[in-house]
Amino acid sequence: MGPEASSGFTAAELQAQLGGELIGAAPDRRLLRLASLESAGPDDLSFLASSRLRSQAARCRAGLFIVSAALTEALPAAAGRLVVPDPYAAYAAASRWLQARQQAAPVAGLRHPGAVIHPQARVHPLASIGPGAVIEAQAEVGEGALIGAQAFIGAGARIGARTVLHHRVTVYHDCQIGADCIIHAGTVIGADGFGFAPGAQGWAKIAQLGRVVIGNAVEIGANCAIDRGALDDTLIGDGCKLDNLIQVGHNVRIGEHTAIAGCVGIAGSAVIGRRCMIGGGAGILGHLSVCDGAVISAMSLVTRSVTEPGLHTGVFPLMPNAQWERAAATLKQLPAMRQRLRELSAGASAPDTRPDGPSTQGPSATESRD
Amino acid sequence: MGPEASSGFTAAELQAQLGGELIGAAPDRRLLRLASLESAGPDDLSFLASSRLRSQAARCRAGLFIVSAALTEALPAAAGRLVVPDPYAAYAAASRWLQARQQAAPVAGLRHPGAVIHPQARVHPLASIGPGAVIEAQAEVGEGALIGAQAFIGAGARIGARTVLHHRVTVYHDCQIGADCIIHAGTVIGADGFGFAPGAQGWAKIAQLGRVVIGNAVEIGANCAIDRGALDDTLIGDGCKLDNLIQVGHNVRIGEHTAIAGCVGIAGSAVIGRRCMIGGGAGILGHLSVCDGAVISAMSLVTRSVTEPGLHTGVFPLMPNAQWERAAATLKQLPAMRQRLRELSAGASAPDTRPDGPSTQGPSATESRD
Amino acid sequence: MGPEASSGFTAAELQAQLGGELIGAAPDRRLLRLASLESAGPDDLSFLASSRLRSQAARCRAGLFIVSAALTEALPAAAGRLVVPDPYAAYAAASRWLQARQQAAPVAGLRHPGAVIHPQARVHPLASIGPGAVIEAQAEVGEGALIGAQAFIGAGARIGARTVLHHRVTVYHDCQIGADCIIHAGTVIGADGFGFAPGAQGWAKIAQLGRVVIGNAVEIGANCAIDRGALDDTLIGDGCKLDNLIQVGHNVRIGEHTAIAGCVGIAGSAVIGRRCMIGGGAGILGHLSVCDGAVISAMSLVTRSVTEPGLHTGVFPLMPNAQWERAAATLKQLPAMRQRLRELSAGASAPDTRPDGPSTQGPSATESRD
Repeated sequence: MGPEASSGFTAAELQAQLGGELIGAAPDRRLLRLASLESAGPDDLSFLASSRLRSQAARCRAGLFIVSAALTEALPAAAGRLVVPDPYAAYAAASRWLQARQQAAPVAGLRHPGAVIHPQARVHPLASIGPGAVIEAQAEVGEGALIGAQAFIGAGARIGARTVLHHRVTVYHDCQIGADCIIHAGTVIGADGFGFAPGAQGWAKIAQLGRVVIGNAVEIGANCAIDRGALDDTLIGDGCKLDNLIQVGHNVRIGEHTAIAGCVGIAGSAVIGRRCMIGGGAGILGHLSVCDGAVISAMSLVTRSVTEPGLHTGVFPLMPNAQWERAAATLKQLPAMRQRLRELSAGASAPDTRPDGPSTQGPSATESRD
Repeated sequence: MGPEASSGFTAAELQAQLGGELIGAAPDRRLLRLASLESAGPDDLSFLASSRLRSQAARCRAGLFIVSAALTEALPAAAGRLVVPDPYAAYAAASRWLQARQQAAPVAGLRHPGAVIHPQARVHPLASIGPGAVIEAQAEVGEGALIGAQAFIGAGARIGARTVLHHRVTVYHDCQIGADCIIHAGTVIGADGFGFAPGAQGWAKIAQLGRVVIGNAVEIGANCAIDRGALDDTLIGDGCKLDNLIQVGHNVRIGEHTAIAGCVGIAGSAVIGRRCMIGGGAGILGHLSVCDGAVISAMSLVTRSVTEPGLHTGVFPLMPNAQWERAAATLKQLPAMRQRLRELSAGASAPDTRPDGPSTQGPSATESRD
Repeated sequence: MGPEASSGFTAAELQAQLGGELIGAAPDRRLLRLASLESAGPDDLSFLASSRLRSQAARCRAGLFIVSAALTEALPAAAGRLVVPDPYAAYAAASRWLQARQQAAPVAGLRHPGAVIHPQARVHPLASIGPGAVIEAQAEVGEGALIGAQAFIGAGARIGARTVLHHRVTVYHDCQIGADCIIHAGTVIGADGFGFAPGAQGWAKIAQLGRVVIGNAVEIGANCAIDRGALDDTLIGDGCKLDNLIQVGHNVRIGEHTAIAGCVGIAGSAVIGRRCMIGGGAGILGHLSVCDGAVISAMSLVTRSVTEPGLHTGVFPLMPNAQWERAAATLKQLPAMRQRLRELSAGASAPDTRPDGPSTQGPSATESRD
């Protein structure tokens, strides 16, 4: 944390922000920072939000804890505590409050002289523009937006109020980002989708005439690539949260409040529902759909539409390499093994005595690729 | 689409571009934009290029369709149509034509005063250089090239005629990019390959003395990383198309017209053939080769050389998580199951009556790691 | 290689750098460049460091070889050779020596007038700052550091002596990078970790109050994303080497001298040991640990802590697609097959004669997810 963190805050100030009941600590108890259970010392605020961390909490020397009534007895007996209904949400609120205290607020309306702003761009007087940023003709930047150093906003693009583009974010022409979004450094929004027609002379480019349209309160991590649509727009709904190094292909549509972990790749024209969670490194093939509330495990590949919410997985389990070699080699024998097993079953059991005999193990829809 | 799209075009103008036979529409029929079957309205041009979309086309209200003779009867009876031999290629051509109409052509030879061009760089008078771009000594930029804002061209690097580097593309020293290429924002060409020699004090760096050499008509998406060679060059052949977030290791060679989807990683010294297609998120290990015309499925890992064209796959199929847990747990038992099956087969069948007995299921070359 | 490479070097100069015994070549033998066995000609230096390349070396026409005593007889009989104990390490040293000869040393202390350096930044007089770089208040840059064009160093961040940030590297506020590091273009260090608390109105942001702290002699490739910690810091130990397009989540800790290949994703709070090697495209889930010396195969997912050093693997082997379809379809039948096999075994063998009967194949800890 920066040096600004050292001034600290009191238990009463914290309670004023979060509500809850303060127990075992004086209101003027001063704390220096918010710290993890693992590293917190007597001058620190920590929090306990999961019963899995009970034993770690019991050893923690924090000066004050955010905790729920259900978990309060897991804390050291003498520890001060602020008891709230949802300690994880309270921790989130505390973290934002402390960050706002620590960091100097950016000066609204400051435009660095090194920024290159086209005279026909429409930049709100209270938007801030960093050094080296480039804003092209007809681009719009809303009230209170923060455009980081070296960011690029192409012609006709629109950035909503209070949205933060960190350093070197690129927004291609005509794309739209809503209000209250955060886009981290290096992310590229609106590059051409991957569209080519095969021909005798090689691949012929299909111009990508759509846009990227991003809703409100969306956060996107660093070095992502969100492609513009071929004809229709690529859409990311309100409240979606994307981690780093994510690829979103052209014409993808992602529903509200879906969270996507790092290194995920989503191929063109996939439709992802609302409040889905996609694990890190997962892949989603193109032209299929994932229903609302579906959860995809890390590094699993979605090869057909997911129609049931809940967790779906498809990864080869990790093994010591020698064990893996044996298992992987046998995989190719699986269909033959199955056939042999059927034959043995047929030989071992007469049809009249074994109602679950070979016929129920014959080819069926469940054998198709999935 | 940008506001420039609104002027529209006539059916005759389109036919002049694409050829084909105009049926059921007056030559002066005016259309406003090119739209998908899903969203096209009476003022729009759409196209039908796949029999899988027949039913969608039958409901589409587009004012004009690009279609083949074979599919023309799938359209609404009264719809206007331009019948061409290859409607997908015609759509690609139409998209490029409309994009060129909509976007103001960049002014050839414009150099933004904020660009930093070394006096010993050789920039063609008709190349355009955006704000904040940096071009170092002995770098060359060809006729009609467009160098985007904040792009970086290192010492001695060469950019061919009409090639477009979008914003923030980085080309390290001495690398070469051919003519008519498009490189999207944030891509890094020519960073050091990953080469270190193990030693008692840790990893010793191997200087990467080769270059990246990219042919003509290559397109590379956003935020890729194409490493320079250790000694020989990293080579990408004419007409290759790479999507976003792709890693190409040092000394990789990729043949002409190969297409690579997003998030693929190719390790050092791999040799990829011509006209291959590599699915999104796939991996290719180092020091092996993939033959011409091979197709690798998404998220599959190539662990040994591929010597046959056609589709190759290696992904664990997606399942509801409880089903996956059972299947994954059993995977480790596979070799034991196979052994047990052999024993049972040996017990169940006398050698004289079962010519396909245990001997044909013994260890063989197919059990080796693959 | 750049044109500067053409001046060449003598065998005696090389021996002065690397030591070893010069055999079959005059000390004043002049060589032009360092080249691979595949491409070296009579004016080139090459090296043989692996017995797997014996036959290639036997055909190589290089004018001089770096080789070990054990492999020297694999070279053409008349070839000059410099015999050293560790030819791969000697090659690494030679590559660095030649690179230093070829490239003009950057002028220490040069600050491009287009750089934007805050008056309260502390930049060592012998650090070099490229055009368009931005250095914010209280940031520190050490002696001999090279800050590339368009790099960004946030408020309070610290860059160690002799560290090189290539073009467009972003270092967010308060992060620290040690001495003698190399960070390649486009990498983002210190963006917010992926932390949100679920709530009725969607995801509530958790401010990321920690930093990224990177040790000495670390190299990181292009377009990576290393997230800052939520409360504690994200830590990368001395001597670690990371390839391109790698994601390191918040609060991850990576031990000294660990090497990580391209496209790897490491989720939050994972702890990676010392001298590990992580293959390309691998994934490591959050809140688990990988012990010192563990090796993870390419594209394998670590789903639980790894407690034994050595190689661990978890990938579905690549197959021709038709074969894969059959194997993948059968995977779902595996638990049923196993059950059927148990039943058959029970029928085929009496308990008294088969001590390894059904009971030893019953459910066990090894069936749990792994």
